[in-house]
Amino acid sequence: AQNCCKSADLREQATNMRLRLPLLCIILEVILIILFGTLVEYNVDTDAKLWNANKNQSATRHDYENEFYYRYPSFQDVHVMIFVGFGFLMTFLQRYGFSSVGFNFLIAAFSLQWATLMQGFFHGMHHGKIHVGVTSMINADFCTGSVLISFGAVLGKTSPVQLLVMAIFEVTLFAVNEFILLTILGANDAGGSMTIHTFGAYFGLVVTRVLYRPNLDKSKHRNSSVYHSDLFAMIGTIYLWMFWPSFNSAITNYGDPQHRTAMNTYYSLASCTLATFAFSALVNPEGKLDMVHIQNAALAGGVAVGTAGEMMLTPFGSMIVGFLAGTISVLGYKYLTPVLESKLKIQDTCGIHNLHGMPGVLGAVVGAVTSALASPAVYGNGLQRVFADGEPGEWNAQSRGGFQAISLVVTLGMALIGGLVTGGYKVGKCSECMLPLGKSFDLIYFKFTTVIILCHSNERI
Amino acid sequence: AQNCCKSADLREQATNMRLRLPLLCIILEVILIILFGTLVEYNVDTDAKLWNANKNQSATRHDYENEFYYRYPSFQDVHVMIFVGFGFLMTFLQRYGFSSVGFNFLIAAFSLQWATLMQGFFHGMHHGKIHVGVTSMINADFCTGSVLISFGAVLGKTSPVQLLVMAIFEVTLFAVNEFILLTILGANDAGGSMTIHTFGAYFGLVVTRVLYRPNLDKSKHRNSSVYHSDLFAMIGTIYLWMFWPSFNSAITNYGDPQHRTAMNTYYSLASCTLATFAFSALVNPEGKLDMVHIQNAALAGGVAVGTAGEMMLTPFGSMIVGFLAGTISVLGYKYLTPVLESKLKIQDTCGIHNLHGMPGVLGAVVGAVTSALASPAVYGNGLQRVFADGEPGEWNAQSRGGFQAISLVVTLGMALIGGLVTGGYKVGKCSECMLPLGKSFDLIYFKFTTVIILCHSNERI
Amino acid sequence: AQNCCKSADLREQATNMRLRLPLLCIILEVILIILFGTLVEYNVDTDAKLWNANKNQSATRHDYENEFYYRYPSFQDVHVMIFVGFGFLMTFLQRYGFSSVGFNFLIAAFSLQWATLMQGFFHGMHHGKIHVGVTSMINADFCTGSVLISFGAVLGKTSPVQLLVMAIFEVTLFAVNEFILLTILGANDAGGSMTIHTFGAYFGLVVTRVLYRPNLDKSKHRNSSVYHSDLFAMIGTIYLWMFWPSFNSAITNYGDPQHRTAMNTYYSLASCTLATFAFSALVNPEGKLDMVHIQNAALAGGVAVGTAGEMMLTPFGSMIVGFLAGTISVLGYKYLTPVLESKLKIQDTCGIHNLHGMPGVLGAVVGAVTSALASPAVYGNGLQRVFADGEPGEWNAQSRGGFQAISLVVTLGMALIGGLVTGGYKVGKCSECMLPLGKSFDLIYFKFTTVIILCHSNERI
Repeated sequence: AQNCCKSADLREQATNMRLRLPLLCIILEVILIILFGTLVEYNVDTDAKLWNANKNQSATRHDYENEFYYRYPSFQDVHVMIFVGFGFLMTFLQRYGFSSVGFNFLIAAFSLQWATLMQGFFHGMHHGKIHVGVTSMINADFCTGSVLISFGAVLGKTSPVQLLVMAIFEVTLFAVNEFILLTILGANDAGGSMTIHTFGAYFGLVVTRVLYRPNLDKSKHRNSSVYHSDLFAMIGTIYLWMFWPSFNSAITNYGDPQHRTAMNTYYSLASCTLATFAFSALVNPEGKLDMVHIQNAALAGGVAVGTAGEMMLTPFGSMIVGFLAGTISVLGYKYLTPVLESKLKIQDTCGIHNLHGMPGVLGAVVGAVTSALASPAVYGNGLQRVFADGEPGEWNAQSRGGFQAISLVVTLGMALIGGLVTGGYKVGKCSECMLPLGKSFDLIYFKFTTVIILCHSNERI
Repeated sequence: AQNCCKSADLREQATNMRLRLPLLCIILEVILIILFGTLVEYNVDTDAKLWNANKNQSATRHDYENEFYYRYPSFQDVHVMIFVGFGFLMTFLQRYGFSSVGFNFLIAAFSLQWATLMQGFFHGMHHGKIHVGVTSMINADFCTGSVLISFGAVLGKTSPVQLLVMAIFEVTLFAVNEFILLTILGANDAGGSMTIHTFGAYFGLVVTRVLYRPNLDKSKHRNSSVYHSDLFAMIGTIYLWMFWPSFNSAITNYGDPQHRTAMNTYYSLASCTLATFAFSALVNPEGKLDMVHIQNAALAGGVAVGTAGEMMLTPFGSMIVGFLAGTISVLGYKYLTPVLESKLKIQDTCGIHNLHGMPGVLGAVVGAVTSALASPAVYGNGLQRVFADGEPGEWNAQSRGGFQAISLVVTLGMALIGGLVTGGYKVGKCSECMLPLGKSFDLIYFKFTTVIILCHSNERI
Repeated sequence: AQNCCKSADLREQATNMRLRLPLLCIILEVILIILFGTLVEYNVDTDAKLWNANKNQSATRHDYENEFYYRYPSFQDVHVMIFVGFGFLMTFLQRYGFSSVGFNFLIAAFSLQWATLMQGFFHGMHHGKIHVGVTSMINADFCTGSVLISFGAVLGKTSPVQLLVMAIFEVTLFAVNEFILLTILGANDAGGSMTIHTFGAYFGLVVTRVLYRPNLDKSKHRNSSVYHSDLFAMIGTIYLWMFWPSFNSAITNYGDPQHRTAMNTYYSLASCTLATFAFSALVNPEGKLDMVHIQNAALAGGVAVGTAGEMMLTPFGSMIVGFLAGTISVLGYKYLTPVLESKLKIQDTCGIHNLHGMPGVLGAVVGAVTSALASPAVYGNGLQRVFADGEPGEWNAQSRGGFQAISLVVTLGMALIGGLVTGGYKVGKCSECMLPLGKSFDLIYFKFTTVIILCHSNERI
């Protein structure tokens, strides 16, 4: 019981790393390797035998039709967003500069492997095997993005061990939610307004609520952002901003959907940026630009066209959505974030509610409306290439819009319950040390890791 | 009248931002959205109906022939140059580090939208509509690049409001000049030695001349470049350097021209870099390398093959051009920039005359000479793929070279007059407060924005 | 003799730059330009006449089959690794921050030109001409990578003049070794575990041994890494990490091999990262993560699948290899590097033995074993697309594995002898000033450059 309480007394950046972190990393990686060895196979585009057999059978199949050439440049852009974009975006908090880049690296490297298994298990099994190729790599990176969004809410309050355990739970629930949305409800969400942003944001917000620590003076840290921190953070911002068109278009169908999605996102972001500069100066009493707004809200336009981007949203529609997203994001930073902290005890370190939460919900709504307005007259033969059930005769736009709306509700539910389960597994007081809810979060992690580690008594707790 | 004078008394980094910047951003974005709504349509490669209708008609049209796959990787490289390259390149001036990245972001986000409209209006209308796709995105980014080049000359002397107004004018004139060169004169300028670099540089130099402020001690700022400023600036330099092959080849014809342009640029830049290191050490009394030279002159090789890069310039020719470009650029920084400031009152903050002005003119001349030497014997059936009028029977190399030379003269004229009009709209003294020319620039902006803002009296001027 | 000794008395960052560096750069570039003018031609994919002639003859040849579209995105990723990755990786040494980026830039710009000639000369001549295209550009960047690896060992001990001379020798020997491996022994080494990493590492280690300077207190510099140095270094690390899949797959065959190589590398790196975090914390008495480990060892997974990545290694196999590579790399930093310095007088500034040396050898061994296990049953018709001599009837896996093993031995021999020749041309004491071996290295450079410069007496020595 005494150990338990001590472990609950966390300090910034990882206490007890001595054995817990190394052993957790090694055990997780060994489990991953064993599961990959038993479950994972090359798909037809990456297997020497299958790809070349296939080619011989079909005279029209050429090497340039390998999915690698359609998707790999997009994959690399997404990869840059995950590792450089998310990593450096969070360096604006001077105090957590290196943690944000370093822990981002660790969590992402773990999550993409675990996501490959979970996404394969829930919606990619072929005769008992998970088939992998560049599309599964993109999907794994997408899932990783969701974990990193949640990381943005708890930055400064968690050790890498806790972050890894959070990733185990969040990746699993992400895959379940994705399965419900894409496979059961047949929803469209190529850029992940719902699956990635809404899910990641509300999951993270619940976890940070559970972890609430009254003494964490967030605003002090934020104010200590300095010249170089801001320039490093701008590296993250700019890379996310530039490559968001690749993010939203990475797994859409080939041809016009991929092309259109990239372009819609481009216009949404440009419009969002002007809204961000405008409202950032407007809400400041002295008319000064707030760097935190520029670094974050200018990206909300990418989030908000994550669902509708592949549809015939038009540049006009994209720009309106982007403008709204930038506006609500800045207003969120200014007026909502302080309320969340003071009233709801939600310490949202990086403001993910403003960048991913609200714009994600907006994106889901825009996606539902755009689906409900889709018609064969506008999409022609391309209807089926955007909507899986878009066969001209059977097309029901209202029904599609309804399923999109249900998908948002499901995602919000999964994120809230998932975050609660992950963050506060044992509701109420800890049975051993009578610590309140927030502390029991750490207790669970402690227990989880002691079970794994086995040699509890050898730790320096 | 008193307000007018006060407004003319600008301080570094945006006075009067309180309402002018937000309202200007909002009004501009609303205008953009309305114009996009009425004028812009998806092109055949991005429209669901058109692309899929087209595919059915032609048995040979496949998704991999969508222009997205030919141009999108190049587009992303160009995008990185515009937002990371230009943004960080200017951080070498420690004092303006964040302004350069932040204002770069704002101006670029606005300019690419405005450029889409202007370029579409002047040379991309189809039945009264502007058709957009990845090629229009690249062209919009190119035009934005020109605005950012001009920004390099006035950095530290202008508010974001002024920069936005400059962008409105410059983008418009850029589109007119581009129309004259590409459509009327049939000029080749895929990498924009003339349209982007020469135009942007001389436009910016005239504006900075008009804005001349004797108290601005530029050299002091430059000397204050420090360790980290230089490393941030090198991020900008290196990204521009690496992706310049993509920049020059982004809108050339598919196949050999795109491939050849990228390679010629690669060799020109490599050769230019050695010339830069050589002459930077040579012109320094102690043989030391000057970081400003390395950060800027090493890029001149990309500028100087912007016109001829798609031609059969050969790696040999490219390397000679690159070597010359690096040499004149370093010599310009050393000997010409101080003269421009002291004799002509042109304060070229970032030295754009050395990086874009002279190498741009060199590139135009090299393009004219290479065109004049082009022959069916060397180009074979590829002649028409490089030169629009390259039909074997009608080919007249001397005429083509002549039109290229005329294009340079037109560009210089447009840039000089355009810069003068933009910078010093009201020539002579201000009629209200009798301030000289340089101050009236601000006055115009003031008037322009007060007209827009309507609520002049509410501003804190 | 007095000059000789003086010249041997180098200080950090380039003495005698005044004339030696500029003249060396100019002379080298002039030689390069002349050799390019006489020897280099566009290949069929970049030549206007050849590409378009070819297209007419073959009805199935389309612009999208130009190698540009298969390789250029990979080339750009490799280019980023060479200029940003290697350049910024070495900024973790605060003292050498700018030298590492700046000299990296110079050496790389020279080496890629020289490599084009040397690689063309040894294994790319067609009727007396070297044919260039995007594949030769990638190969030149690869060779440059090898020189930059060696640079990592001698950082802080060499002037740019010495680095350029080292590059002349190393590029030449690289091309000879590559010729022996790929052409004579028919070895597979698409990602360069042997040709790039093993060769570059052991070459550099021998050179740094020859340059041994007892007073260079390396550990002091390393300890002076600070917050911002570490963030800059992480830029290098992350870019190398993200783009390593492109590096290893850049010159493999089109289709499944390129796709598979990228994916194998991705999984190897993810696994390696977890191993790195685990062992970095494990070997530290306080369980703290060592930033130098994170920045370097996490990349070893990419090196170690450089040979076997294109084979049917499976994600499972890749992850095991990555895990081993990360482990030996961290252990190398912790236990081997200090021994190398204290016992063998090898001052490995950036720890290239841990990042490139041992993982490179591991990669060669993995490649040999994977080759020896390759069978038509697993590869099907794809066997020949991975192994040049993989014709089903004649395939002998054991023999292929044997040749791979011989290739490693040859590479080690070439690197050791090459490094000795380059670093210590004149073995023993200097005949003029009786300085020991280490100093004579500089003497040779001095002599080499004086011969070139001709105007020895004018130098400020």
